[in-house]
Amino acid sequence: MALIVQKYGGTSMGSPDRIRNVARRVARWKAQGHQLVVVVSAMSGETNRLIALAKDLSPQPDPRELDVMISTGEQVTIALLAMALKDIGLKAKSYTGAQVKVLTDSTFNKARILDIDEANMRRDLDDDTVVIVAGFQGVDEHGNITTLGRGGSDTSGVALAAALKADECQIYTDVDGVYTTDPRIVPEARKLERITFEEMLELASLGSKVLQIRSVEFAGKYQVKLRVLSSFEEEGKETNGTLITFEEDTTMEQPIISGIAFNRDEAKLTVLGVPDRPGIAYQILGPIADSNIDVDMIIQNVGHDGTTDFSFTVNRGEFARAKKILEEQIKPHVGARAIEGDNKICKVSAVGVGMRSHPGVASQMFRALAEEGINIQMISTSEIKISVVVDEKYLELAVRVLHKTFELDQAAA
Amino acid sequence: MALIVQKYGGTSMGSPDRIRNVARRVARWKAQGHQLVVVVSAMSGETNRLIALAKDLSPQPDPRELDVMISTGEQVTIALLAMALKDIGLKAKSYTGAQVKVLTDSTFNKARILDIDEANMRRDLDDDTVVIVAGFQGVDEHGNITTLGRGGSDTSGVALAAALKADECQIYTDVDGVYTTDPRIVPEARKLERITFEEMLELASLGSKVLQIRSVEFAGKYQVKLRVLSSFEEEGKETNGTLITFEEDTTMEQPIISGIAFNRDEAKLTVLGVPDRPGIAYQILGPIADSNIDVDMIIQNVGHDGTTDFSFTVNRGEFARAKKILEEQIKPHVGARAIEGDNKICKVSAVGVGMRSHPGVASQMFRALAEEGINIQMISTSEIKISVVVDEKYLELAVRVLHKTFELDQAAA
Repeated sequence: MALIVQKYGGTSMGSPDRIRNVARRVARWKAQGHQLVVVVSAMSGETNRLIALAKDLSPQPDPRELDVMISTGEQVTIALLAMALKDIGLKAKSYTGAQVKVLTDSTFNKARILDIDEANMRRDLDDDTVVIVAGFQGVDEHGNITTLGRGGSDTSGVALAAALKADECQIYTDVDGVYTTDPRIVPEARKLERITFEEMLELASLGSKVLQIRSVEFAGKYQVKLRVLSSFEEEGKETNGTLITFEEDTTMEQPIISGIAFNRDEAKLTVLGVPDRPGIAYQILGPIADSNIDVDMIIQNVGHDGTTDFSFTVNRGEFARAKKILEEQIKPHVGARAIEGDNKICKVSAVGVGMRSHPGVASQMFRALAEEGINIQMISTSEIKISVVVDEKYLELAVRVLHKTFELDQAAA
Repeated sequence: MALIVQKYGGTSMGSPDRIRNVARRVARWKAQGHQLVVVVSAMSGETNRLIALAKDLSPQPDPRELDVMISTGEQVTIALLAMALKDIGLKAKSYTGAQVKVLTDSTFNKARILDIDEANMRRDLDDDTVVIVAGFQGVDEHGNITTLGRGGSDTSGVALAAALKADECQIYTDVDGVYTTDPRIVPEARKLERITFEEMLELASLGSKVLQIRSVEFAGKYQVKLRVLSSFEEEGKETNGTLITFEEDTTMEQPIISGIAFNRDEAKLTVLGVPDRPGIAYQILGPIADSNIDVDMIIQNVGHDGTTDFSFTVNRGEFARAKKILEEQIKPHVGARAIEGDNKICKVSAVGVGMRSHPGVASQMFRALAEEGINIQMISTSEIKISVVVDEKYLELAVRVLHKTFELDQAAA
């Protein structure tokens, strides 16, 4: 008997029929003798509907009150799933974040979980009851309702698994696992049986939308065994999805690269001819950060003649705002020669723990791109990842070429 | 400075524009220096939408889980109203029933309020904050979410007013007060400046939909000063609505009758030729009550030849079910001769504390109806009310005749 936390997203909870499907899947796991905690998202579209209603009333909705409102989406689905489980003869009980209690800080709209009280859930589990918990939400020390921000239900699932010391946290989604790359771009993409936590973290941060990055970080911190599975596989045809592990598998030959990630949602900004002196990076990026614009890659090359060029990438939706800040505040302030921008770029990355022991990966990657005539605009690396920025029009080509170069279409040895 | 509890129904909260209207009204009361607690219903239609969603999933939704779900309707409107108030510069804070805490018993779907903790609200009120509370909901001793049943938001408002010892509980609705009868039937109907608690109780129970009867009972028990007002009157054109008082006004000539109420939603059942012996009423009505069918009027006349006829009225929606029980269970069991039923009847009532000191009211009423050729099928009286059951086709005529007979179209002296 194991204690399993399952998390179902908004698509899996999107209609009464789908909720009944989830109930049947939960019942099959229960029938195997496991204890089950099920974390659910709101029905797909519901959170956006509530936010639109709030914005219709108030252009800048009060953050505390917005959380009171949007937390109702999951409050509806926990009740519906509990009803569906009872209808097929299981004991089930729903919990809001406050009822659990999932204690968070008071940062409304993007609260962080501080502690989870397992007492009530444990009592129900010992009583053979399926515990259903509203994802995405918690309660602060004053009893205010909080939410964890977009994708917060994954974090709820992992945090509950950590608090309960669950044997596994299963994230059910509309894909059946983590792939070597997006099968819509490379039909030969393979599903990975397992991937290391570090690789998953890089993939999540690189725009692979399977898991929200905060939940992966959380799983890493508390060593929660995570598994990504499809909630749309039929009974009897379920696969094992992808397991996210903490140890590199030493029993077999590791592939050097596990996957090719990409992100189309990028834009590049360059400040040309800035004085090459200490503190210049802060002077440029400080006002950008103050405007709540997230910066991704940052490149500063060696200067000459006392000046240098400074480049960084931002989310494409922030491009115009960031460019305006550079031109109006930063250019005159730091005495830059000019501001350049390009919002028709993309980022392509190769990820794999194997590159630690294989130093030639970067040059292999650059050669493959060069042979296809793809110009590399920016490069950024970490211990297990190499990212390049290229013209957006080369995205599919670059992903296909790299997928083939690193033999990701071949099953692991 | 007074402490005022205001309650706004689903129509008043039906859209962002209407919620902004409510916010402006609250702000005007606040500007007069009052402390304000505002109780709100869900947006009109929302509770029904949620119930339909639950029934789409489960034919008999689990009562606990149904409450978890339908309580979200008010959780959305408290947040929206708090946002609207903050947008116009007021301090405001929303509370769910659990956050208040409105302690109820554990009878899901129709819980009764046991206690209200005023500490949190009082702190906010003293801090010049408008307190917004979700109507219709509470929490039981185990932390389960409960709801109070249809119209429960009125009860929430009155209970909060009682707990806080508010100076007045104002029920805002889509009518501007309590009328001598329905103006759609009698255009000369007048709005009453005041009405006694007892009269209001009779009117509420007789199908006048202005206030929910439980809330009137609650107000009576805790001597809460209730006022019915319109939420649709424009600024500068507001009236004082109708005040529900606890003392009969002795400073002026009382009208004998305060209003004519009616209920079209009735059906009559008669058990003919039952043995005239002790216990027969219980034998007939026991199985009806066991089936959760509410019985309204009950008539048993003196018998002859050892048998009697037994009649009662039920809600028209329960007519078929009640008739089936009578025919299948009761008729053979008590040895009745036959079962008769009529679902084309209505009830018309004259209500007024003045009839205590004016014994001729009943005969005056019966004569007026007889002069119009309206046959009376059943009669039931209380100390301050006379009700008759007549053929449904006479409803409008009976109401108009009685309204005129008791001079309700004339302003009180």
